[in-house]
Amino acid sequence: MAEHKQIPDPTLLRMCRYLRILERHDDATISSAAIAEVAGVNAAQVRKDLSFFGEFGQPGVGYHTKELLASLKRMMGLDEEMEVVVVGAGALGSALINYPGFDNRGFRIVAVFDNNPAKVGHRLRGYEIMAFDRLKDTIAEHNVSLAIIAVPRTAAQAVADALIEAGVKGILNFAPVTLKVPDDVVVRSVDLTLQLETLAYYVRD
Amino acid sequence: MAEHKQIPDPTLLRMCRYLRILERHDDATISSAAIAEVAGVNAAQVRKDLSFFGEFGQPGVGYHTKELLASLKRMMGLDEEMEVVVVGAGALGSALINYPGFDNRGFRIVAVFDNNPAKVGHRLRGYEIMAFDRLKDTIAEHNVSLAIIAVPRTAAQAVADALIEAGVKGILNFAPVTLKVPDDVVVRSVDLTLQLETLAYYVRD
Repeated sequence: MAEHKQIPDPTLLRMCRYLRILERHDDATISSAAIAEVAGVNAAQVRKDLSFFGEFGQPGVGYHTKELLASLKRMMGLDEEMEVVVVGAGALGSALINYPGFDNRGFRIVAVFDNNPAKVGHRLRGYEIMAFDRLKDTIAEHNVSLAIIAVPRTAAQAVADALIEAGVKGILNFAPVTLKVPDDVVVRSVDLTLQLETLAYYVRD
Repeated sequence: MAEHKQIPDPTLLRMCRYLRILERHDDATISSAAIAEVAGVNAAQVRKDLSFFGEFGQPGVGYHTKELLASLKRMMGLDEEMEVVVVGAGALGSALINYPGFDNRGFRIVAVFDNNPAKVGHRLRGYEIMAFDRLKDTIAEHNVSLAIIAVPRTAAQAVADALIEAGVKGILNFAPVTLKVPDDVVVRSVDLTLQLETLAYYVRD
């Protein structure tokens, strides 16, 4: 695990972009310049990023598209399906459950949790909404490592604690709060309002 | 405008977090250490970030909470309401329209657009869904600078072009594509799948 974390986060994010470009590329080979152009970075950056994962490509030929794609997927843990649970069945949680991008990329939502008695037991886009007391068993049963938190700010830390206790190692957090987690758990926070706020700074008069 | 862009993006994101901490702080003063603890950074970072915006606080006293809050809000363009349009009335667009965080922070959605004839004219959470041909007039009428793009990948660039032509200067983009925009337009992309993918890297066996 420690070794993984030496790859800088911006590199990882770019690598995921490169993966998509490779998937949509029809030719047998692709140059770093071609990847760079679509990704909106320069070719040297592409070569540097790929070097984190090993030696790829040949001067004058470029990369073998399928080979590079397969190697990157494997090294990034994206070569097999990954189970995810969603906590929070409000408007955002519902949208996330229905988000085609997750399914297309091999993420399979296995359970949806909400502690609102009015929601528990109802179905949401094919999923039965379960109360939090079923969180631990469900996560263990499906061997889930990833969770999405889409609950209000005040509930988010308790939900994170319960998920981690149940064995979750990666959390995608949509609640506007900084979660405290152990060192072996990774959190990525998507704070939608924060993003709009920084845009407001740029566009203000 | 050029001057704005000298503040690094990570600093801006942290500043938005500090704003929230200040809003929830009941005491008349607050120390950089107290801000730092809640924000999950160190106190030196807080002081350095705030120094981008001017001189605040006194040694041994800390910052005057309300004064610092008002100054930061003003300097970040968050002291007055800001109009936003949403393009895309699918599951994600609907969730965003209903997202309480935007409204709470002074962002007011003034219009929702979608080009699906089955949707145009219908109401979505109080908003009439309008076709793209009304985009330009609506943006001009409300003097809108900010837009949220929640359309499929293949439609995103054309939507961005139309928004920019209509006068939008800041775009929050949820489509998994790198948008090409002029230098005076700022884009922040939130790629939900990308975030999950980088988590997969950390939690893979």
